[in-house]
Amino acid sequence: MEQRIEAIRQWMNGSNIDVLMCQTRANVFYYSGFDTDPHERIVAIFILKDRDPFFICPHMEVNQVKPIFTNGEIIGYSDTDNPWEKIKDAFHTRELAPRKIAVESSLSWDRVKNLINLFPSADLVEGDDAILSKRIIKSEKEIALLREAAKFADLGIEIGIESLEEGISEMEVLAKIEYELKKAGVREMSFSTMVLFGEKGGDPHGKPGNRLLRKGDSVLFDLGVVWKGYCSDITRTVFFDHVTEREQTIYEAVLEAEEASLKKCKPGNAISTLDNTARNILEKKGFGEYFPHRIGHGLGIEVHEYPSLNAKNDSPLMPGMTFTIEPGVYIPNQVGVRIEDDVLITESGYETLTKFPKVLTIVPEKN
Amino acid sequence: MEQRIEAIRQWMNGSNIDVLMCQTRANVFYYSGFDTDPHERIVAIFILKDRDPFFICPHMEVNQVKPIFTNGEIIGYSDTDNPWEKIKDAFHTRELAPRKIAVESSLSWDRVKNLINLFPSADLVEGDDAILSKRIIKSEKEIALLREAAKFADLGIEIGIESLEEGISEMEVLAKIEYELKKAGVREMSFSTMVLFGEKGGDPHGKPGNRLLRKGDSVLFDLGVVWKGYCSDITRTVFFDHVTEREQTIYEAVLEAEEASLKKCKPGNAISTLDNTARNILEKKGFGEYFPHRIGHGLGIEVHEYPSLNAKNDSPLMPGMTFTIEPGVYIPNQVGVRIEDDVLITESGYETLTKFPKVLTIVPEKN
Repeated sequence: MEQRIEAIRQWMNGSNIDVLMCQTRANVFYYSGFDTDPHERIVAIFILKDRDPFFICPHMEVNQVKPIFTNGEIIGYSDTDNPWEKIKDAFHTRELAPRKIAVESSLSWDRVKNLINLFPSADLVEGDDAILSKRIIKSEKEIALLREAAKFADLGIEIGIESLEEGISEMEVLAKIEYELKKAGVREMSFSTMVLFGEKGGDPHGKPGNRLLRKGDSVLFDLGVVWKGYCSDITRTVFFDHVTEREQTIYEAVLEAEEASLKKCKPGNAISTLDNTARNILEKKGFGEYFPHRIGHGLGIEVHEYPSLNAKNDSPLMPGMTFTIEPGVYIPNQVGVRIEDDVLITESGYETLTKFPKVLTIVPEKN
Repeated sequence: MEQRIEAIRQWMNGSNIDVLMCQTRANVFYYSGFDTDPHERIVAIFILKDRDPFFICPHMEVNQVKPIFTNGEIIGYSDTDNPWEKIKDAFHTRELAPRKIAVESSLSWDRVKNLINLFPSADLVEGDDAILSKRIIKSEKEIALLREAAKFADLGIEIGIESLEEGISEMEVLAKIEYELKKAGVREMSFSTMVLFGEKGGDPHGKPGNRLLRKGDSVLFDLGVVWKGYCSDITRTVFFDHVTEREQTIYEAVLEAEEASLKKCKPGNAISTLDNTARNILEKKGFGEYFPHRIGHGLGIEVHEYPSLNAKNDSPLMPGMTFTIEPGVYIPNQVGVRIEDDVLITESGYETLTKFPKVLTIVPEKN
């Protein structure tokens, strides 16, 4: 944490910023080590240019924060306190009257107004790019956690495939996956698990329900876990009992697109290349119109974070970046195929953190 | 939906507001019927003073929105589009140049700036109170869904208690609860399920882990589901194998506080009375300092919504309000007891939507 705070202070000093206020779950975790879902109660870290940061949270959480955040004062407030009064006091005690304050672009209008009210003559500037350009490159420790998170994602796919049998519902499969993962110690999925059978997969944002598995169905799994603060996100598509020629063609096109995009994953290549490579292949095969989303998204403390891997992002890939590659083809009311891996950019190329096999898989009915 | 939009238009007309922009998951669902977790992509409904609203979302979701939102135009955008250009066009096409725009107080600074950029001379005003004062009173249909959600919460407690046996871990119990609920059709828990054994319950925000169940442990369950867009939230505390006299004293104090607070639940009473009633009882019994949070929170589309049930909220209770009552006593590193019900204010008093028994329960070890 100390190193991270030092790194952002360099930016603060260079930009004449007196205070950086962070209050998203992800940034609070990144700078304090404390992970909490704050609901409507404010939990924030104030990073100061030239002295220790301070941390504010509900009284109830102070005891949890103490062993984790050891770099500065921890200020608690009760449900009847106004936390902004406490923040005001914290600045007052330190005899600080900031002139330039960096905040997150997701800071709510309400909190922006409270901050302006405290420091009417201060300039507010956006801190996102500075923070996220630090977060975009993962440390060895972060990569180790992402690797562990990815392993649980692989396990989730394995459990899902093992549970397939004629007549089981999407929700039952989903429940089994999450049950086994939670038994293994996973506290939280990184997003709502997706298990979609047959035509249900034709909607890229379809929701699992009571659809029962039939022979000949495709099965699309999209799932991930949060492990010690870091996310995974995997998609695999398999076929139950048998596959049609048409579905096999789609599967092979998506797999070819994914692998071609992966091959472009090396330092220096433009991010847009990854999207264009996959898109060109799918277009050539006549599936272009059925691939409606970007090729992927950054992955770390958040399941969707920087960088956005779209056709317009010409920033270069750098070692330590982690993101998903996930082309898909969705034929409405018929079938959907998506293949998604978590990818780490290494010094010389890439490594997929998710390892579950991608060979076309036909799952036989149980005896 | 039509009625809800009409109701908020009355407020808009009375306050000379040309446009209300809603983009929180909860408000989008409330006004359009469409429930989605938008991550970083904007999903919003624009309610116009004197013509049909319009809806904006990623292209991928347009097909899901169509059968649900039938009151106006649905505008899709791709990952490479700038959605604010689409919003600009939508106003342009309608020849609308709003002078006063209401937004949610949680609207991000980034989106505030985009909006100001589109309409530099418009006034931005806060729409929260107007929206939330409508949402605070539930319709019969909403109450029916809250009732169903509460039933699943009761079921969760039942499953949790049934799974207790010496040596099982908190996470295993949690996994069993969620597995059975998901098998029963629940897609989403309303917050991270809490299962805390013994001293782990002494922290009101404790996290379940690998602590194994021992004879003499208290077991605190706090859980809820989202059911067709509506939330439940229940807490029960039971004891495994046996209970100490001291724990029994604490349990009875919390139960007395909860029931006394429930008895104050009727139209016209100040919300603060509910908190004060419980707090006075716990203070008299010497547990005042161990009850660090408000007595409860509103419950509906969100698991924490209006009203906040604290000692300073003197607004009156009204029929159709739904909220939690949840006093607790937390002795650090020893034990925690919380009892929480979901409550509906009726014409003459109240009804608890959660029905699981609250009598002091000692769960025997399985044979």
